[in-house]
Amino acid sequence: MKILVINPNTTESMTAAIAESARKYASPGTEIIALTPKYGADGIDCNFESFISAVAVMDLVATYQGPFDAIVMAGFGEHGREGVQELVTVPVIDMAEASAYVAQMVGRKYSVVTTLDRSIASIEDRLILAGLFTRCASVRATGMGTLELDEDPKRALEVIVEQARLAVTQDRAEVICLGCGGMAGLEEAIAREVGVPVVDGVGAAVRLAEAVHGLGLGTSKVGTHAFPEAKKIIGWPISQHLT
Amino acid sequence: MKILVINPNTTESMTAAIAESARKYASPGTEIIALTPKYGADGIDCNFESFISAVAVMDLVATYQGPFDAIVMAGFGEHGREGVQELVTVPVIDMAEASAYVAQMVGRKYSVVTTLDRSIASIEDRLILAGLFTRCASVRATGMGTLELDEDPKRALEVIVEQARLAVTQDRAEVICLGCGGMAGLEEAIAREVGVPVVDGVGAAVRLAEAVHGLGLGTSKVGTHAFPEAKKIIGWPISQHLT
Amino acid sequence: MKILVINPNTTESMTAAIAESARKYASPGTEIIALTPKYGADGIDCNFESFISAVAVMDLVATYQGPFDAIVMAGFGEHGREGVQELVTVPVIDMAEASAYVAQMVGRKYSVVTTLDRSIASIEDRLILAGLFTRCASVRATGMGTLELDEDPKRALEVIVEQARLAVTQDRAEVICLGCGGMAGLEEAIAREVGVPVVDGVGAAVRLAEAVHGLGLGTSKVGTHAFPEAKKIIGWPISQHLT
Amino acid sequence: MKILVINPNTTESMTAAIAESARKYASPGTEIIALTPKYGADGIDCNFESFISAVAVMDLVATYQGPFDAIVMAGFGEHGREGVQELVTVPVIDMAEASAYVAQMVGRKYSVVTTLDRSIASIEDRLILAGLFTRCASVRATGMGTLELDEDPKRALEVIVEQARLAVTQDRAEVICLGCGGMAGLEEAIAREVGVPVVDGVGAAVRLAEAVHGLGLGTSKVGTHAFPEAKKIIGWPISQHLT
Amino acid sequence: MKILVINPNTTESMTAAIAESARKYASPGTEIIALTPKYGADGIDCNFESFISAVAVMDLVATYQGPFDAIVMAGFGEHGREGVQELVTVPVIDMAEASAYVAQMVGRKYSVVTTLDRSIASIEDRLILAGLFTRCASVRATGMGTLELDEDPKRALEVIVEQARLAVTQDRAEVICLGCGGMAGLEEAIAREVGVPVVDGVGAAVRLAEAVHGLGLGTSKVGTHAFPEAKKIIGWPISQHLT
Amino acid sequence: MKILVINPNTTESMTAAIAESARKYASPGTEIIALTPKYGADGIDCNFESFISAVAVMDLVATYQGPFDAIVMAGFGEHGREGVQELVTVPVIDMAEASAYVAQMVGRKYSVVTTLDRSIASIEDRLILAGLFTRCASVRATGMGTLELDEDPKRALEVIVEQARLAVTQDRAEVICLGCGGMAGLEEAIAREVGVPVVDGVGAAVRLAEAVHGLGLGTSKVGTHAFPEAKKIIGWPISQHLT
Repeated sequence: MKILVINPNTTESMTAAIAESARKYASPGTEIIALTPKYGADGIDCNFESFISAVAVMDLVATYQGPFDAIVMAGFGEHGREGVQELVTVPVIDMAEASAYVAQMVGRKYSVVTTLDRSIASIEDRLILAGLFTRCASVRATGMGTLELDEDPKRALEVIVEQARLAVTQDRAEVICLGCGGMAGLEEAIAREVGVPVVDGVGAAVRLAEAVHGLGLGTSKVGTHAFPEAKKIIGWPISQHLT
Repeated sequence: MKILVINPNTTESMTAAIAESARKYASPGTEIIALTPKYGADGIDCNFESFISAVAVMDLVATYQGPFDAIVMAGFGEHGREGVQELVTVPVIDMAEASAYVAQMVGRKYSVVTTLDRSIASIEDRLILAGLFTRCASVRATGMGTLELDEDPKRALEVIVEQARLAVTQDRAEVICLGCGGMAGLEEAIAREVGVPVVDGVGAAVRLAEAVHGLGLGTSKVGTHAFPEAKKIIGWPISQHLT
Repeated sequence: MKILVINPNTTESMTAAIAESARKYASPGTEIIALTPKYGADGIDCNFESFISAVAVMDLVATYQGPFDAIVMAGFGEHGREGVQELVTVPVIDMAEASAYVAQMVGRKYSVVTTLDRSIASIEDRLILAGLFTRCASVRATGMGTLELDEDPKRALEVIVEQARLAVTQDRAEVICLGCGGMAGLEEAIAREVGVPVVDGVGAAVRLAEAVHGLGLGTSKVGTHAFPEAKKIIGWPISQHLT
Repeated sequence: MKILVINPNTTESMTAAIAESARKYASPGTEIIALTPKYGADGIDCNFESFISAVAVMDLVATYQGPFDAIVMAGFGEHGREGVQELVTVPVIDMAEASAYVAQMVGRKYSVVTTLDRSIASIEDRLILAGLFTRCASVRATGMGTLELDEDPKRALEVIVEQARLAVTQDRAEVICLGCGGMAGLEEAIAREVGVPVVDGVGAAVRLAEAVHGLGLGTSKVGTHAFPEAKKIIGWPISQHLT
Repeated sequence: MKILVINPNTTESMTAAIAESARKYASPGTEIIALTPKYGADGIDCNFESFISAVAVMDLVATYQGPFDAIVMAGFGEHGREGVQELVTVPVIDMAEASAYVAQMVGRKYSVVTTLDRSIASIEDRLILAGLFTRCASVRATGMGTLELDEDPKRALEVIVEQARLAVTQDRAEVICLGCGGMAGLEEAIAREVGVPVVDGVGAAVRLAEAVHGLGLGTSKVGTHAFPEAKKIIGWPISQHLT
Repeated sequence: MKILVINPNTTESMTAAIAESARKYASPGTEIIALTPKYGADGIDCNFESFISAVAVMDLVATYQGPFDAIVMAGFGEHGREGVQELVTVPVIDMAEASAYVAQMVGRKYSVVTTLDRSIASIEDRLILAGLFTRCASVRATGMGTLELDEDPKRALEVIVEQARLAVTQDRAEVICLGCGGMAGLEEAIAREVGVPVVDGVGAAVRLAEAVHGLGLGTSKVGTHAFPEAKKIIGWPISQHLT
């Protein structure tokens, strides 16, 4: 099967890292097609940037020419999943939700460790709307931004381990979700340090997309995610105006 | 004071109707500046269109040149409020939330009567995240789309009254919120028929914007709605690329 | 318009302070009529005193002779709003609820800073029933009673700022509500210290009463707040028996 | 042991009926002391009347001369329990809460069948604050007021059975609570008709008061229900002014 | 009346201690019949052991020959109550739920102090399903296992008092429930130290069983707890195969 | 990988049907090992039977000799998952939870269609504890027992389609979960009739078990699902006493 794995930000190197993580966990026979938005921020840390990414991702999906069997949205706490679901019949799996689904399968309560404090609210909102907040022990921030994580991977590991430990000892988490694509690849080291399962979101989303596809299921087109009606939309797709 | 009242869709005549409703309820001395997005759908009935509107409204706010004291977002169930709040220090009032706030002040439970069935989920999601769903008795759809409401106002009144009555008798609503800008102007006729307070969302949002401004308060810039950090954003503002 | 602003306790000097705060925030053209109950405690710190105040406030409303357009109940966590709503058709705005409404309009989560520990439960109960607890980050007590606040305003400021800071840093509040009429006038100093919007409850209630009145709305008389049926009530109004 | 069983309304014949029901279910050795408020409505159907009853009941308790070991508040959905708890160290059992406690012990979900439609909100509010609403399947009204129940017991039985049946078949209730003191004595007939346990609230409250007393426990005086502080209260107790 | 009080574990000395506690609080005329399962663990600290106990307790009930009027299940957080309810018409009272019921009658929030950390989840789950978690301030563990409590009662008292104090001061509990049968007999000493009511679960369950029986009520046989249908069950009752 | 797929009841033909369904959806390379309990009911319709199955399934797992990589518990609403998780380090996937997980990935709200009315409560309880009830639109019963479904597959299809349609039109479900192993194989026919995705629980559980295994994750052994401590357990494993 072919999975579109879409990075919500415009940094190509992050798309490459996401693709690597996706391929690491994909089953044999699954083809990963990694895409980068044509507009938007090079890193997403607030609602302003997140809403732009939602539209840029929908734009990518609406203009993608080849065949595909599922979509993975590789943002943690970003908007847009409901919009993408309206455009397709294949499964659309959001990385934050996928992390929570998998976490709930292996422990009673899970915590998310993310980058900056201000991302906590967005992540909580996505989990609340997804009906996945009941078993969330906490969303914790390391205080290191995405770019910082990239630049100082040793310190990144330290601060993530520190928050993950607090999540386990103080918040009673039994599983940790890595709440930022930039943390990909650290899951095993963190799991060794903290002693609980650590979920890589991209991997989780890819595996769940395979599972839903394997069941012969796709997005329900009755109700919320029905196709948009034919309508006059000015300036759409936006990407065609940008060159 | 000056209030930017922003129609989320691209139909100028709806912007005019919204402006009329805003001016009808505004206090003396309040200036209403009605704006129309530069891109997006001519009517918003799904998440796909709603996310585009979120970005188009942020674009309008980011590029607006003159002074203003508050923003009213005149969509019922549309995305984007959290993003706009990050761009400004003035109060940002969403029409659906404003309706619920006012409804809760005058009755124990309220119902929303909206257009199409598929809008119910979006409205519920906005109310849940706003912490305003506990006292929501129901969100009911008339089955008439926005354009249909415009074309056949007599039948519009009938179907809205029908759903409002069911909300009162079956769902125990004590107040009705009109869940679509296109229903503006009908509130008094519906209230006469059904016998409960009927809230016009644009009016409610304008009056609450005045109230918050009058208290000398604006959007908290600590935490969720802090200004976005300086960052490289490709293609932003989008509107400048569209001509 | 004329607003009855009712102090729930029997201390005239507090009524005067509440009236001052109400007038500070009222729009031009709004007349504030401040009232003091004819019986009850000189300060309200528990349910026993709060229930008496509910009845004394209803007694004031039932026996008030002149015209009025809205009622503001200037207690924070006191009982009685539902009872007063049954007696009138105008809007009835409770100060604690008004604070929460306004706080929610300007930030994602709010905290209340109140006087004594034992008031926390009452405030929580009012917010729960009002459907406004979801976005409450915490209710915190300073440990200083109302009279103490009056006597030592410098220390009052210190302890309120201390709790407000904890609310922001530990509970993730983005807005602070002053949970006691005796804190009126401190809102600007606290906001300067803590860096988040601080809501004065009396001001909030007055402004919201104006907003609802401006929308042409009043208390729904269908259901919960319908007028009481004619009935034999011994000893009512209580105030006529007290001289 | 001695239990004060307090009718919230001023109708002596209802006090007698409540006393009869209390004695029917009391254990041998339990003395029932039934009291009638000195002021307030002869029947309670709204918040206005309910708040007066809260104060009148506190007045009775505060001025009662003899010894007692527990208090039963024999109103279904009335205010005041938290206030009475502050005045004493003995257990204070509210009839509506007692009904829900017992109902939960014998079935998964329970419904309340009460008198008028407008009482539903008050009953729901009490159950919500008491943390007993999760297992409430519904609160249903018969449409017959308290006095009507008294006058036409045959029809009363019919309409209660009708609503109880709907609660069982439509709302999945497995137990019925009689939501009005005036329904006392009908529990066995209703249970025979509907085939589920039917809880008489006065009996439930008396038996639970005995249970708590038998455990050597009383109202916690730490926190919410601590004694009121010494304070100047004008006109209190109110009853002494009424002659 | 005769109450079957069933210890979920296979340690006879604990059955004796539970019986003693039951008799201490039982009313005159109540006969306590204490039973020990024929298979299962000698102490229950996890779900594995708890599910076995559920079946062993059902086995005891199904094979008990004499008459009885109520069943008390003397485990704190153990499974099985719904299963036992299906086998009988008499009331079935679970000790953890009984503690919460009584605690709610005498204070606004309660905390449970239990043995090991891993028991917290089970206790929370039982309270959630019983609809009794809203007023639970916390479930706290002492870190001492059941056998340790037995061996070192002096240190047991110390660690329970320590956690109970933290529950009161930090979690705002107003009542403490002893979350382990092995803590029976300590309730008065703990109450003296901490100054809040302390509930002994076995006593609470016995007294509530008496109350429900005294009301002439038993388990509703409509819906969830209807008798099992006649069916082929291999190896049942299990106990007959064990000798 | 090898997956133990465990039928909770003792009917071998149902184990065979479950195995068939598991193999239909399993990925190439996944080996399905279907097991039948050594004791318990031939069909599970109540808590009494469900608790026995929980123990019989744990018995099977504890005594299984060969290697395995995951466990699927093929009961819909049965107890025991938390107990089995304590015994192993591999993932343990419950069929009812798996259905809900998958349903949530493809639609906003899902409904479960099950057999008898009395199973609704058990299914709801499992979903509540699993934190998966927020997006559950309804649990509906067809009124046909498991054996009846087997005997009259044509009528089974009719009644399931009827309830699924009501779930979509009245409860706003967008996905249907088949709430009984006996409905396996009907999913495609139902989906064709009703027009929404229909989830087969066994298939969903198998695919999710593969996904978690593929991510290199297993049950967290910190906290709730840690291994039971060494302890004296009488009569365990129960199966060895049965011959």
